[in-house]
Amino acid sequence: MITSLSGIAASNGIAFAKAFRLENPKLDVEKTTVEDTEKEISRLDAALAKSVAELEVIQQRTREQISDKEAAIFGAHLLVLSDPELIGPVKEKITNDKQNAESALKETADGFVAMFEAMDNEYMKERAADIRDVTKRVLAHLLGVSIQNPSMISEEVIIIAEDLTPSDTVQLNPQFVQGFVTEIGGRTSHSAILARTLEIPAVVGAKSLMATIQNGVSVIVDGLDGQVLIDPDEATIAEYQTKKAQYEEQKAEWAKLKNEATVTADGQAVEIGANIGTPKDTTGVLENGGEAIGLYRTEFLYMGRDEFPTEEQQYEAYAAVLKAMEGKPTVVRTLDIGGDKELSYLDLPKELNPFLGLRAIRLCLEMPDMFRTQLRALLRASVHGNLKIMFPMIATLEEFREAKALLLEEKAKLLEEGIEVSDSIEVGIMVEIPSTAVMADAFAKEVDFFSIGTNDLIQYTMAADRMNEQVSYLYQPFNPAILRLVKMVIDASHREGKWTGMCGEMAGDEIAIPILLGLGLDEFSMSASSILKARAQISKLSKAEMASHTERILALGTSDEVEAYVKSIVS
Amino acid sequence: MITSLSGIAASNGIAFAKAFRLENPKLDVEKTTVEDTEKEISRLDAALAKSVAELEVIQQRTREQISDKEAAIFGAHLLVLSDPELIGPVKEKITNDKQNAESALKETADGFVAMFEAMDNEYMKERAADIRDVTKRVLAHLLGVSIQNPSMISEEVIIIAEDLTPSDTVQLNPQFVQGFVTEIGGRTSHSAILARTLEIPAVVGAKSLMATIQNGVSVIVDGLDGQVLIDPDEATIAEYQTKKAQYEEQKAEWAKLKNEATVTADGQAVEIGANIGTPKDTTGVLENGGEAIGLYRTEFLYMGRDEFPTEEQQYEAYAAVLKAMEGKPTVVRTLDIGGDKELSYLDLPKELNPFLGLRAIRLCLEMPDMFRTQLRALLRASVHGNLKIMFPMIATLEEFREAKALLLEEKAKLLEEGIEVSDSIEVGIMVEIPSTAVMADAFAKEVDFFSIGTNDLIQYTMAADRMNEQVSYLYQPFNPAILRLVKMVIDASHREGKWTGMCGEMAGDEIAIPILLGLGLDEFSMSASSILKARAQISKLSKAEMASHTERILALGTSDEVEAYVKSIVS
Repeated sequence: MITSLSGIAASNGIAFAKAFRLENPKLDVEKTTVEDTEKEISRLDAALAKSVAELEVIQQRTREQISDKEAAIFGAHLLVLSDPELIGPVKEKITNDKQNAESALKETADGFVAMFEAMDNEYMKERAADIRDVTKRVLAHLLGVSIQNPSMISEEVIIIAEDLTPSDTVQLNPQFVQGFVTEIGGRTSHSAILARTLEIPAVVGAKSLMATIQNGVSVIVDGLDGQVLIDPDEATIAEYQTKKAQYEEQKAEWAKLKNEATVTADGQAVEIGANIGTPKDTTGVLENGGEAIGLYRTEFLYMGRDEFPTEEQQYEAYAAVLKAMEGKPTVVRTLDIGGDKELSYLDLPKELNPFLGLRAIRLCLEMPDMFRTQLRALLRASVHGNLKIMFPMIATLEEFREAKALLLEEKAKLLEEGIEVSDSIEVGIMVEIPSTAVMADAFAKEVDFFSIGTNDLIQYTMAADRMNEQVSYLYQPFNPAILRLVKMVIDASHREGKWTGMCGEMAGDEIAIPILLGLGLDEFSMSASSILKARAQISKLSKAEMASHTERILALGTSDEVEAYVKSIVS
Repeated sequence: MITSLSGIAASNGIAFAKAFRLENPKLDVEKTTVEDTEKEISRLDAALAKSVAELEVIQQRTREQISDKEAAIFGAHLLVLSDPELIGPVKEKITNDKQNAESALKETADGFVAMFEAMDNEYMKERAADIRDVTKRVLAHLLGVSIQNPSMISEEVIIIAEDLTPSDTVQLNPQFVQGFVTEIGGRTSHSAILARTLEIPAVVGAKSLMATIQNGVSVIVDGLDGQVLIDPDEATIAEYQTKKAQYEEQKAEWAKLKNEATVTADGQAVEIGANIGTPKDTTGVLENGGEAIGLYRTEFLYMGRDEFPTEEQQYEAYAAVLKAMEGKPTVVRTLDIGGDKELSYLDLPKELNPFLGLRAIRLCLEMPDMFRTQLRALLRASVHGNLKIMFPMIATLEEFREAKALLLEEKAKLLEEGIEVSDSIEVGIMVEIPSTAVMADAFAKEVDFFSIGTNDLIQYTMAADRMNEQVSYLYQPFNPAILRLVKMVIDASHREGKWTGMCGEMAGDEIAIPILLGLGLDEFSMSASSILKARAQISKLSKAEMASHTERILALGTSDEVEAYVKSIVS
């Protein structure tokens, strides 16, 4: 008998409850010939309309209960439903080939899903999942089959499912749903991200899950280590109760640090900020004791809509964040779109290597009117708090100068119009391109601050797409080359009396934190839920001691050697 | 009246002659319905067979008169003709839709051409050109139209064409064809490359060419500056005769340096090598006074065929190069495939960012059997000359160690089998990934030499796809970040008593050469036709003086500033 399954730890915590199998609805589609094709088109339109209505309810509920960012997922679903590239071919199959609506839809959707999945890329696979989710809903309406509705669950359960669609996940009521386990999916799938936001323990990618766990069986989900225990004996239950208690205790201990400053064991202060996507995220930042916002990704404002946000809409969002942060430092990154991030209303040429293409500041300088609108909105909002403006993907001094010149032009115009603008806005850049790290000394003379974006910096420095599993072994945050570049940036900023932050995933990493402290990093920006843990770790580390190891660490040859060295000094 | 056109300088030299318009054949395709589809399939098969026969003749002729590398273009064309993805849909249209062969072929080919062109990438556009070229030939056979045959030209002319297909270009007899001008195409198009190999002056991308130049008009082609002079007056003719004479004189002066060593004005020797693709290229290297082969790209051995080359086939190629070079240093790069370079018989998954994907050494370490075959062939060939083995796309020390371990294993096996292997093979790496440049000190302890591949190093350091026109402004060889990385590599190698070469395009660049001399670069590897010019330039430069400028150059902030500085010191 199988007593445990391993998967990917997707959301922290430990949960005990009965298994509740969320089954995929039986959607048996037969291909038939229809005579009255107009009637068939009407059936399709009706099913689409019902699906749109349901999704709008779910989207609204998500916006209220979770956040705009998660609600954007359903914006994407709604776009799928009105996408002529999907619906057009379905209607053609009905009209031209006299196919029934069910099979016309399924064949078309399967084609798109297969195409996106064949791309072997995490992002496109998620788009395939979106189409699958939406198609299921429309097919259910066409076939008159009801979809299981997880929002009706009224006892404590652990959800067991092949895959949770975003619309499933959003309906999970954390009062009853103690955790979930899925057979497929990765740490970056929509459902894993939602689980972390909802703070439900979750394990994803647990192979042969559906063949193993029956309805009603007692289950433990260990979202800390990615384990699922099936029908556990008393000793196992006791063991995991202890583990759960330790985790809760640790969380309580971290919670005490909420209103404390971040200070090392030898009395050196650093700043811990948070990365956010929407104004609503500021609540989580403050609840978790964030001292700053180290990265406000403004691209979510541009997503899930039909046209560019107006200056007024942007002003309101930026002002809301600045007011909520009550004078705490707030770094707003200007639009970082392009690459794998697309806008439905902005038609960009396809690129063979989008990560090396026209994105972020490159695109903004190509489209100065769009960029100026954002800069004006930011400048107007600046009077409501401590705004710092940051340009992404800067590769050359010229790009920074050009972007800053546009900012100063807009500022001068606003002042002329009699509109108040703060006089103490710092203007900095993301350091995420190797050339910029190597040239940090020249940049430090002109920028007010640096923020190192490790996700991209690693990908370019190692020449390895971080989304491509085939070269994932080269995504090495601890490669000494990365650490040396980080040191160049920090040292260059300090020589000019400027500061350096880090807003990539690395800033919240347990192994990275001691190294970064030693290198003299001034600001660590991470997901809000990691702040207290990081503050606790930093409070136990001596900055001087960590600095004494820097030279030896940077002289190591490989990422593995660095990791082993750090483990040996902090354990 | 228009008296001149500007285009892209594609092949050096100046030519004077009458215009000869090479017109596209009139291939008017009508879509008709056929009753006897089997007969239509036979017509198609016959046209395909005739085209194959012609292409085989052209391929053979190219192999004999030019090189294997250029002949590979026609190998690619022959593959198009037997590609089931192209021919399958054509036959289906005939059989299922009763379409005539001409329209079935044209529709299918147009679809592929449109798809490849939409990709907005130089490489895929060339594939589109291949399909267009092949389709034209087959259509001409189907329609019974004869294609103009440039090999029949028997008087001195300058070819004027919308575009020259590779098969057109190969038929140009340099005895009569003095130069050519095309309306479309870029410096890296097949025809531009062939023009340089044939040493015919050429200008490509001359807009409105076909509407401007009539048959028989007197024309001057200036392949040095990308100018076309139409019906020139006597003053213009005199001016260009002087320019041509100066160019010829310069070429003659350079030719005198053929058997000289490369020595700076202050008596410092450096080495100038050549980049080659096939054994036949060694002729050009020796004729141009190359002191070494700095880069032998072995991937051409793997292209234009149906299966991997055998150990024996590889051995013969490597031995031929080493014998031809008679003991001169010969750096062979192991297989660099993947990214934009595909093999028809190796099915690799599509990647979203192929330049950041599974290519070169990454792929070889994934496919060790394929890699071991190449290493054995190299080791066996090593007794015939001065072999140096170089691994491409090394990003980490582990990759180098793993590749070298495979090499040593194969060497041990060969020795055990009683096969002789040289004991003085140097083993080095390409430095083309930023991490490797930053870690050059650690690498220098383990490798025998470095060769800097600037094309990729620039693209990754600036995070800009060098094939993507939208970000081409970021392809900056003189960005101080690039120069600083180059310095790190050279200094690291010298501290360990090793040497550093450069085999990217930058090594032959007039502005780069003074900087690289100052930085202490040991070996410059370039296209054979650039060697003598570079040797002449180096003989007039003082290495010590150039070195005295290094610090100031590396402290500059932008690429433009570097370029201006170098121009000011060498002019």
